[in-house]
Amino acid sequence: MGDEPETKLNGVLRVVIVGAGFGGLETAAALSRSPVNVTIIDRKNHHLFQPLLYQVATAALSPADIAWPIRRILRRQENVQILLGEVTGVDSDRREVIVGEKRIPFDTLVLASGATHSWFGHDEWAPHAPGLKTIADAVEMRRRILMAFENAEMEDNPTERDRLLTFVIVGGGPTGVEMAGSIAELARRALATDFRHIDPRRTRVTLVEAGPKLLPSFPEPLSDYARLALEKLGVEVRLGSAVTDCAASGVSFDGAHIAAGTIVWAAGVAASPVATWLNVSADRAGRIEVSPHLEVPGLAGVFVIGDAALCKNDQGIALPGVAPVAKQQGQFAGLLIDARARGRKDPGPFRYRDAGQLATIGRRAGVVDFGRIRFKGWLAWWFWGIVHIFFLINLRSRLIVAIHWLWSYLTFDRGARLIT
Amino acid sequence: MGDEPETKLNGVLRVVIVGAGFGGLETAAALSRSPVNVTIIDRKNHHLFQPLLYQVATAALSPADIAWPIRRILRRQENVQILLGEVTGVDSDRREVIVGEKRIPFDTLVLASGATHSWFGHDEWAPHAPGLKTIADAVEMRRRILMAFENAEMEDNPTERDRLLTFVIVGGGPTGVEMAGSIAELARRALATDFRHIDPRRTRVTLVEAGPKLLPSFPEPLSDYARLALEKLGVEVRLGSAVTDCAASGVSFDGAHIAAGTIVWAAGVAASPVATWLNVSADRAGRIEVSPHLEVPGLAGVFVIGDAALCKNDQGIALPGVAPVAKQQGQFAGLLIDARARGRKDPGPFRYRDAGQLATIGRRAGVVDFGRIRFKGWLAWWFWGIVHIFFLINLRSRLIVAIHWLWSYLTFDRGARLIT
Repeated sequence: MGDEPETKLNGVLRVVIVGAGFGGLETAAALSRSPVNVTIIDRKNHHLFQPLLYQVATAALSPADIAWPIRRILRRQENVQILLGEVTGVDSDRREVIVGEKRIPFDTLVLASGATHSWFGHDEWAPHAPGLKTIADAVEMRRRILMAFENAEMEDNPTERDRLLTFVIVGGGPTGVEMAGSIAELARRALATDFRHIDPRRTRVTLVEAGPKLLPSFPEPLSDYARLALEKLGVEVRLGSAVTDCAASGVSFDGAHIAAGTIVWAAGVAASPVATWLNVSADRAGRIEVSPHLEVPGLAGVFVIGDAALCKNDQGIALPGVAPVAKQQGQFAGLLIDARARGRKDPGPFRYRDAGQLATIGRRAGVVDFGRIRFKGWLAWWFWGIVHIFFLINLRSRLIVAIHWLWSYLTFDRGARLIT
Repeated sequence: MGDEPETKLNGVLRVVIVGAGFGGLETAAALSRSPVNVTIIDRKNHHLFQPLLYQVATAALSPADIAWPIRRILRRQENVQILLGEVTGVDSDRREVIVGEKRIPFDTLVLASGATHSWFGHDEWAPHAPGLKTIADAVEMRRRILMAFENAEMEDNPTERDRLLTFVIVGGGPTGVEMAGSIAELARRALATDFRHIDPRRTRVTLVEAGPKLLPSFPEPLSDYARLALEKLGVEVRLGSAVTDCAASGVSFDGAHIAAGTIVWAAGVAASPVATWLNVSADRAGRIEVSPHLEVPGLAGVFVIGDAALCKNDQGIALPGVAPVAKQQGQFAGLLIDARARGRKDPGPFRYRDAGQLATIGRRAGVVDFGRIRFKGWLAWWFWGIVHIFFLINLRSRLIVAIHWLWSYLTFDRGARLIT
């Protein structure tokens, strides 16, 4: 064992995973019996179930209902250690990940650091139109939404009061649709009778989408249904409207302007700066195009998975930035690294098994698309709920989210209406 | 109706309540059928169940489990309006409460604004030894406690690592005892196997109390039991030790020093600045001594209740700053105001019906003191749990807290281990 290369600790392959999202955790899980040392680096101490983050932003759930300590999840996996810290770069030559003043050596690197918001080059919009990626984002969004009603209640000027009671959501993908539906129901139901000087039922919620339809990745009939369902909740849907400005006073697009107190950015995402770290080229969204084995071309043993990877299917179409893609890629990368650690042949190239897509619109409507099987409405909404509860990480979270949802369903109340 | 005094709106008595804690909410509830207009002013949008705040600070519960929107609680009480804002003063002559730039006129004023921390004149200790009164305090405390373990895990210097794994709680009242027990169990149970470089079971937890016993308001045998129960959890209890300094490096007392990474202040409280607002005299803790009808002497129609009031019983002993006192005073003030609004005679002077006192030490021990009936141990712990669940404000919170507790009981896990 004495003549191992210097890069190996006690002769054991050192695998560093950056990010404990869906992709990173699956990689670690796939390495659970592997003869490797795994280090997971994340700037947060928790894994977040992002698909339900909009429910934290709209006061339906608490942060801890959809987030779990990474250490807890992996505590029984003895070949894993966790490092809380923010990656600032990668030294590809010395094969080290740079975390502030620390340098973490690796033999194999898996970059699963996800994506962040992108305001399409207009970072000055950020303070007025915040996005939704982290718990801090969601708690701040919740504060803004609830404070809009509080400020409207105290406002004497009717024009300003109307502005405060106007919410614009930019982006018609699943997050935008879910936020719009949830804000509309918060106003019309949960808050309906709680104020004395305003009527929250008169709240104006507008969803703005640059493209020709909502839920762009869904088939036409489901997109149309989502639009109708939102309109039934009182949401104004504006398609084909590209936003030209987000400011404290409201949103501008196509020459028009909506005076709004609260803007939610659900439009653009950009990959975390993996390409900068590795000094390789990226696409417009900052993603690195990976090989069929999810490695960065020219950098053997460096993998990129999830939202930071540009990975094309057989038809040459980029896979979407959704949880099932990240998870399957994480599992693939883990199994491939395990095979190499054991001196076995690489498994075949990565192939995505389409896991379908779901979205919900308010408390009774949903859309489900499994390719051949498609359905919508009440049944899709229930299906969405059951699937999401199933994917939560432990029994406690499942019970608690189920109780919150049941309670909200019966009473229209929201469980976490806190301004902090 | 045309010749009412100017101070009344449409001839209806205007009651302003400052603070929606236990006292303020009870006042409002007692006025629910009263012919008055009630305005509640609070700087937070939620009522907080403070007795369980330490469980948020130690990652057992989420903030929303023990806090509910004031508007939601009072939404059906049509004579109440709620104003979110911070009181900055009272104009006793013009009978107006000053909220920033706003002035809220009152005929009757109930000051139920509670207490805050007091570092006994050493405000420079505050950043190193924060207290626990609000949700923001609890979330910050949780962050500090969890980060201490994370930083210890990354620390190479063994002396500094030991310092990071040392927690000092200053103050041996119920909050101090509960925090000490809860941190000890967090370290020895919930976190026990989650780290790779440190052993959280070796965490040092010290509870420092200036007086001769823990839980000063409890009878001797229960105080002794609490001390034994804490020591069994591995907590070091130092009685008769007055703290002389709190700094970034640790806590000093009696010439000795404990190098500690985290200090929790559970010692002194001071009333909110009611005496300054009214320009009347106060005791050392900032409390205003009230009449047997809970009014401020010389200021008819101005009541002080709860932690901001100095209210003595028949033996001349000040009532403690606990929830049952605030609630009974709130109810008394409300009924008295109602009687006056209806032109009836004032009810007799306020008398406190002793509601007993409870405290818990970790996951199996508690103390209960009802004067004649006293018990401790396992049964007291269960009793404590049932009573606290019963006092939560709605069924949802009761179910959710019960599930969190049951889960923690069975798995030793904590439901809200988030660093945000």
